[in-house]
Amino acid sequence: MMIASKLSVNSDRLKESIEKLAEIGQVADGGVTRIAFSQEDIAARNLVQNWMREAGMNVRIDAAGNIIGCYEGKQPKIAALATGSHIDTVPNGGHYDGNLGVLAGIEIVRTFNENNIRLEHPFEVIVFTDEESTMIGSKAMAGTVKNDAELYRLSDGTSIAESLAKIGGNWAQIGSAKRDRSQIAAYIELHVEQGGILDNLNKQIGVVEGVVGAYRAIITVIGKANHAGTTPMEMRQDALVAGSQIVLAVNDLGKKMPGKQVATVGKFNVFPNATNIVPGQVEMSIDVRDLSAENVKKLLAKLEHQLTEIAANTQTKITLKPYLWVDPTLAANEIVKAIANTCDQLGLSHYSLPSRAGHDAQEIGRFTDMGMIFVPSIEGISHSPKEHTTPEQCTQGTNVLLQTFLQLDRIYSTQILHHSQHPPANQFAG
Amino acid sequence: MMIASKLSVNSDRLKESIEKLAEIGQVADGGVTRIAFSQEDIAARNLVQNWMREAGMNVRIDAAGNIIGCYEGKQPKIAALATGSHIDTVPNGGHYDGNLGVLAGIEIVRTFNENNIRLEHPFEVIVFTDEESTMIGSKAMAGTVKNDAELYRLSDGTSIAESLAKIGGNWAQIGSAKRDRSQIAAYIELHVEQGGILDNLNKQIGVVEGVVGAYRAIITVIGKANHAGTTPMEMRQDALVAGSQIVLAVNDLGKKMPGKQVATVGKFNVFPNATNIVPGQVEMSIDVRDLSAENVKKLLAKLEHQLTEIAANTQTKITLKPYLWVDPTLAANEIVKAIANTCDQLGLSHYSLPSRAGHDAQEIGRFTDMGMIFVPSIEGISHSPKEHTTPEQCTQGTNVLLQTFLQLDRIYSTQILHHSQHPPANQFAG
Repeated sequence: MMIASKLSVNSDRLKESIEKLAEIGQVADGGVTRIAFSQEDIAARNLVQNWMREAGMNVRIDAAGNIIGCYEGKQPKIAALATGSHIDTVPNGGHYDGNLGVLAGIEIVRTFNENNIRLEHPFEVIVFTDEESTMIGSKAMAGTVKNDAELYRLSDGTSIAESLAKIGGNWAQIGSAKRDRSQIAAYIELHVEQGGILDNLNKQIGVVEGVVGAYRAIITVIGKANHAGTTPMEMRQDALVAGSQIVLAVNDLGKKMPGKQVATVGKFNVFPNATNIVPGQVEMSIDVRDLSAENVKKLLAKLEHQLTEIAANTQTKITLKPYLWVDPTLAANEIVKAIANTCDQLGLSHYSLPSRAGHDAQEIGRFTDMGMIFVPSIEGISHSPKEHTTPEQCTQGTNVLLQTFLQLDRIYSTQILHHSQHPPANQFAG
Repeated sequence: MMIASKLSVNSDRLKESIEKLAEIGQVADGGVTRIAFSQEDIAARNLVQNWMREAGMNVRIDAAGNIIGCYEGKQPKIAALATGSHIDTVPNGGHYDGNLGVLAGIEIVRTFNENNIRLEHPFEVIVFTDEESTMIGSKAMAGTVKNDAELYRLSDGTSIAESLAKIGGNWAQIGSAKRDRSQIAAYIELHVEQGGILDNLNKQIGVVEGVVGAYRAIITVIGKANHAGTTPMEMRQDALVAGSQIVLAVNDLGKKMPGKQVATVGKFNVFPNATNIVPGQVEMSIDVRDLSAENVKKLLAKLEHQLTEIAANTQTKITLKPYLWVDPTLAANEIVKAIANTCDQLGLSHYSLPSRAGHDAQEIGRFTDMGMIFVPSIEGISHSPKEHTTPEQCTQGTNVLLQTFLQLDRIYSTQILHHSQHPPANQFAG
């Protein structure tokens, strides 16, 4: 048996798995289209389940269609340490987003298995259902799925009940997928950054501080549409002039307030949108993200104050309608420290940053300790066939994940909690 | 015979003519849809020609389909004094735009005729073809029609040759419609303001200084589309932030430069226009209008300077592609003075302003003395069923037009110029 602290994964085998999985749903330009619940998704799920079993895991599917591979621990009845991600993609997506996290988990189990290593804790690799759209897999596990099937209907019209049935899930029993801290003691997800910070700073590993909260709203500006020739400047109520001031105010707040928040106007529509008409109306989205909910609230308070001023100065009416508030999920301190320590031990440069994209870890972090490890995305390109992370970077991230779990296995209690790890079988019946 | 200086038109008859003409093409909500060359346009043209003949005019149609009604002068061979406008409308337009100018001219001739008044000069009332779209009528008269039939094809696909044939014109002979100063010594057009200045200032008559020139361009901003969550503020090349700065720069130049110019961004499109993506591209129109071409050029030079600064500050690429330059047409001083004098004599308040909308007068002013008289548009509403000018205001404008022509008849030379007033008949032969 190898000394655990020297243990590292098989880089070639990991690369091969990534390439093999990317063949399923691959389109002309090398991108992958593997939408959740599609035939391609089902084929990929079967492949991954086979790999899990070959690596020595028991595999089950929960009511949300999540694939849960379990590599038993020395103490089978205690809460698991878990990793995972997703294998569904956006249309014409890349090879790494989600897939890396799942395949890294399987590669770690292969490495444990061939080196006859077994942790104290059960070790789970989880493939979450439909991360790219509904996130129903991780939400079901966190118990945050709403009791309204319509919210989860696919864009092609298929009901969620039908979709889940295709992959072995069961909408009627969705509540049974819920888990808690007595079942998963800690969850760490390895993911490509989907942004350019690590690549830009030339850092090897990102130690994620948490997944940011998101606030979204629609701002509407009502001015007065008028003839662009015959309406003197001083008689105008130009909604685009007001809208432009709002864009700059949002951008300034994002830039100048202390903190790492981002604030974006991404959608911006002008009416009637004709060369010779002073714009009468503008509708825009705002999207604000930060690890600190309080910071987001401060920014919004300042923005609302500025909207009042802009409305007065431009003689327009401005309304703001919030439609989304997702609380941030912070990474557990113990896990953040363990990841940073691991990087130091492995001689890998690391950088602390928030995840500003949503991930399954965000939902899992609502009920247990969570951490995330990022590897660089070259040029920050994401959701594109051009998404790329080198094989070396993939291996580095997977080794950090492996070594961090070895640490956590020592840190986390091995006490048997009063809940059973898995719900009894009859809970799925019916 | 009445003393000419006391002469005024028949208000009820003018009102009745306006109402009668508005019946042709009237739609459910009281608006009028009388697109040039349509059955409705042809019906209206026939009605107006009958009214011209009844009022004592000779009527001819030129190759551009313009209806030219001539009330002979005491000296039939000298250049005419002319008025006119158009009777085509935009879809669901109002009752006054264009129509008032034509019917005021006919009402003036009726008034001359019933009072046995004949000017020294021939007096023409002209109905210009298709003012609301191609302006082919006044352009043909000014000789500015291009030798490319495709430029004048209707939006429904009908060729200009076919369209002109329907109303008695002849595309092959379009050059014969050209006239010059030896044929028309002065042209004055009465029109509703199509803006809110007179109504706002409570002035009865607008003395038009000229028709503004127009400059139009497309500005394109190329930034970099990026994930709105994962791209830190300082790494962004946000095309919408740059675009918003441009909108404010255009608006500021319009407001703060000395002069009466207007500057507008009316069309503004953002790509990819999604809530969670930092905008990568913006395309916008700019429209600048002023009586002074030099002033417009100064404004554009300042704008181009600012575009360079904005591109540098936002790390975007900004290009400006001009696609339209229409020279301003100034009103003749003699005519401006005569209109203002007339207002003073009639006890009507007046206000000098540019016309910032295009008019047939703009083309006619390219070859002879031009003037325009505006009457108020209530609340500045134009191109709408709600467009309104009171019967009293219509009458006031018509009386100013009449009295101004009486003045011009004395001011303008009655010398016979070397050109014949009308081209010889054989010039029209195929």
